[in-house]
Amino acid sequence: MNDFQFYSPTEFIFGRNTEAQVGAAVRKHGGTRVLLHYGGQSAVRSGLLVRVKDSLAAAGIAYVELGGVKPNPRDTLVYEGISLCRREGVDFLLAVGGGSVIDSAKAIAIGVPYEGDFWDFYSGKSPAAALPVGTVLTIAAAGSEGSGDSVITKEDGGLKRGTGSDLLRPKFSILDPALTCTLPPYQTACGATDIMAHVFERYFTNTEEVEITDRLCEGVLLTMVRETPRVIADPENYDARANIMWAGTVAHTNIVGVGREQDWNSHGIEHELSALYDCAHGAGLAVIMPAWMEFVCTRRDPMRFAQAAVRVWGCQMDFAHPENTAMEGIACFRRFLHRIGMPVNFAELGAREEDIPVLVEKFGIGTGRTGGYYWLSAEDVTEIYRIAAHTPPVES
Amino acid sequence: MNDFQFYSPTEFIFGRNTEAQVGAAVRKHGGTRVLLHYGGQSAVRSGLLVRVKDSLAAAGIAYVELGGVKPNPRDTLVYEGISLCRREGVDFLLAVGGGSVIDSAKAIAIGVPYEGDFWDFYSGKSPAAALPVGTVLTIAAAGSEGSGDSVITKEDGGLKRGTGSDLLRPKFSILDPALTCTLPPYQTACGATDIMAHVFERYFTNTEEVEITDRLCEGVLLTMVRETPRVIADPENYDARANIMWAGTVAHTNIVGVGREQDWNSHGIEHELSALYDCAHGAGLAVIMPAWMEFVCTRRDPMRFAQAAVRVWGCQMDFAHPENTAMEGIACFRRFLHRIGMPVNFAELGAREEDIPVLVEKFGIGTGRTGGYYWLSAEDVTEIYRIAAHTPPVES
Repeated sequence: MNDFQFYSPTEFIFGRNTEAQVGAAVRKHGGTRVLLHYGGQSAVRSGLLVRVKDSLAAAGIAYVELGGVKPNPRDTLVYEGISLCRREGVDFLLAVGGGSVIDSAKAIAIGVPYEGDFWDFYSGKSPAAALPVGTVLTIAAAGSEGSGDSVITKEDGGLKRGTGSDLLRPKFSILDPALTCTLPPYQTACGATDIMAHVFERYFTNTEEVEITDRLCEGVLLTMVRETPRVIADPENYDARANIMWAGTVAHTNIVGVGREQDWNSHGIEHELSALYDCAHGAGLAVIMPAWMEFVCTRRDPMRFAQAAVRVWGCQMDFAHPENTAMEGIACFRRFLHRIGMPVNFAELGAREEDIPVLVEKFGIGTGRTGGYYWLSAEDVTEIYRIAAHTPPVES
Repeated sequence: MNDFQFYSPTEFIFGRNTEAQVGAAVRKHGGTRVLLHYGGQSAVRSGLLVRVKDSLAAAGIAYVELGGVKPNPRDTLVYEGISLCRREGVDFLLAVGGGSVIDSAKAIAIGVPYEGDFWDFYSGKSPAAALPVGTVLTIAAAGSEGSGDSVITKEDGGLKRGTGSDLLRPKFSILDPALTCTLPPYQTACGATDIMAHVFERYFTNTEEVEITDRLCEGVLLTMVRETPRVIADPENYDARANIMWAGTVAHTNIVGVGREQDWNSHGIEHELSALYDCAHGAGLAVIMPAWMEFVCTRRDPMRFAQAAVRVWGCQMDFAHPENTAMEGIACFRRFLHRIGMPVNFAELGAREEDIPVLVEKFGIGTGRTGGYYWLSAEDVTEIYRIAAHTPPVES
C-alpha cells in the first residue's frame, strides 16, 4: 500500500426533503451572500429552485442567481460567474444540479479570489484559495458533490481539462434521492456508468497489497450492478435511487482509491469524445471503458481483470486460462451497459471512425505516454478508439 | 434506506513515518499548547514519544504530558487531565496510543470547557463544546481515531459508559502501520476482533434495501478475514498491517453504517465482561459476538446470517435450509477467532458462569428491552452469557 492523505470534510445530508435544510446548512458553514448556480429549466420546472430559495430566505441568506450551466460546463459562464460574485460580494457558492453545475461552481470558487485567469488552474497550477461551495445534488453521476475535482470545457476549441484540490471539496452536500426519481432512463444510465468508471479507474492499479480498497471498490460495483437495472425498470424506486446516490458519492470521495496508483486514461480518452460530439460523458465512457479494458487486458497481466470478472460479474474462474475469465468479465460489462440502454460502440454513440485522428491529436500526448496501470502511446489510444468503433452490437 | 447525516472531517495522514508530521498537523489545526496524552511505557520504549516531541518542538508547539492511561480508561485520570489542561491553558489534545488513550483524550476535551461533571456526557447529556483532538494511532482496533465516540470506565463500581458527537471526531489522525508491527499477536488479534465487531454491529439491521452499506461492510470483513491471519503469522508484514489499520478506521467512521438501524448489543454485553474482569475488549467480543449471533439467528430471520455466511465466509448456500448456512457461518467465525488466538468461551476468557447474574444486573436493563436488530430482555442477555459459557472449544 502507498502512503496517502485522505481528507473529506464534506457534511453529507442525505434523505427525503433534505433540500429544506439548505438555508441552515449555508449559515452553519459561514455563508451570508450566495451565488445560486444552476443549469437549465428542470430545476425551475420541478419546483426545486423555489424550495431552495424559500429555505435560503427562511435562514436570512441573501442570494444572486446564475443559471444556464450546460453539460460539459463552459469557461465562458465561469468568467461571467466570477465577475458577478465580485460585483455582488458573494461569499458562498451554492450549486443546485449535477456534476456540471457543481464543477462550474468550483471553478468560480477558485476564480473569485485569484487575480489571474482561472483557466491557469485547469492548466496545471494548484489553487491556493477558494470560496466555500455547497451543493444540492440532482443526479447521481459525477461524484463532484464529495470530491475535490472539477472539469471545465474551453468554449473556444473544445478543450476539456480538470483541476483538483481538497480546497474544492464542498462544505456540505444535500443528497435527496427523491430528486433523481424523475430523471429519464438514459440520463440515469449515463450517471451509473460514470459512477462505475470512477471505481474502475481506481481499481486497475499496479500497487500491490491493497485488499481493503479492492474490496471497497468491488462493494460499490456490486451495488451498481444490482441497483441500476432496478431503477431503469422502475424509475421511482426510492431505495434503489438512494443506494445509487450514496454509491456515487462514495465512488468519488477517493475513499475507495487511497493508497494506490490509479489510471484515469478511460476518462481522458472519453473527454475527447464528449468535447467533440457534446455527447453525454457517461455514454462516452460506456463505449471507451470496455475498449480500454480489452486493449489493456491482452497486453498486461489478465489476473486483475479476472478478479473483477469473478468478484463483480460472478464469472466462474477458468484456472487454466485466466485470460478467458478476464475477457468474459469485459463481455459481462458490455452486456450490462447494453441492458441499461447505453451505447457500446461508435455507431451507437454517434461518433465517427474517421474522426479518430482528430480525437488522438486533441488527446495531445504527442510522442509521450500517459497512464498508471498501463502507459499508453498515441498509437495505443488510436487502437482503443478503433476497438470502440468496431465493437459489434450486443445481441439482445 | 433511512435518512442520515454523515460528517467525517478528520484529516487522515497514512503511511510510514507520518508521525514526523504531527507538529505541523497540530499547527495546521490551530493548536499552540498541547496536552500530550499516552498510556504506559511502550510509547516511551519504542522511541515514539521522543519522535512526537521532536516534531512538536520543531513546529514550535508547547506541550504538557499526561501518561498512564490504562485499557478501559478511567474517569479518575480524565478528572486529572481536565484540571491539568485548565491549569496549563491547553488548547489541543494530542492522543498518542490506541483507543483507550484517544477515548480518554476525548473525555478531557469535552470536560475542559464544561462547568459540570464530565461524567454527565457519559450519562446521556450531549456535548456542546470540545477542545480539538488529534491522534497518533499505535494499534488498529477501536476506530476511535475516526469516530465521534468515547467509552470511559468509572473507577468506583466499574461502570463502563459511552458518549458520541461529531464534536469528538479528531481533527487529524496519523496512521503509521509500521508502529503496529511490534504488537504482540494477542493484542493484534483483539484489535482485529474489535474491528470486525464494529462492522457486524452495523451489518445486522432491520433496515431494508441498504445494498451499498451491506457491500461496504462485507468488503471490510473480507479484508479482515484475509489480512488478520497474515499478520498473526508474520507480524512485520507492513502491507497486511496497513490494510488492517485502514480497515479499522473505515469500520468505525460510520461510512459502512449510515442509513441503517444498527444493533450494538454485543458491545454492551461485552462491556460488562471487560469491566468486571478487566479483560481485553476484543477478547470479550470474541466470546460474546458469536454467542449473540447464535441466539438471535434461531429467533429471527436467518437470511441475513446466511448472507454473511455466503458473502464473508464463502459458505455454500443451503437453499432448502438457510438456517444451516447461517449456523455454518457462525461456526466459521469461531474457527477464525480460534485460529487468530482468540478465546471463544468463558473458560478461555477467564470468565465464570456463576458471575452471570452479576453481569446481567450491571447490564442494567431491568424489565426493559434493548436492541436494534433484535430486542433483548434480561433473560435473553442471561441466555447469551450462558451460550458463551457453554460454547465448546474449537477443535484444532
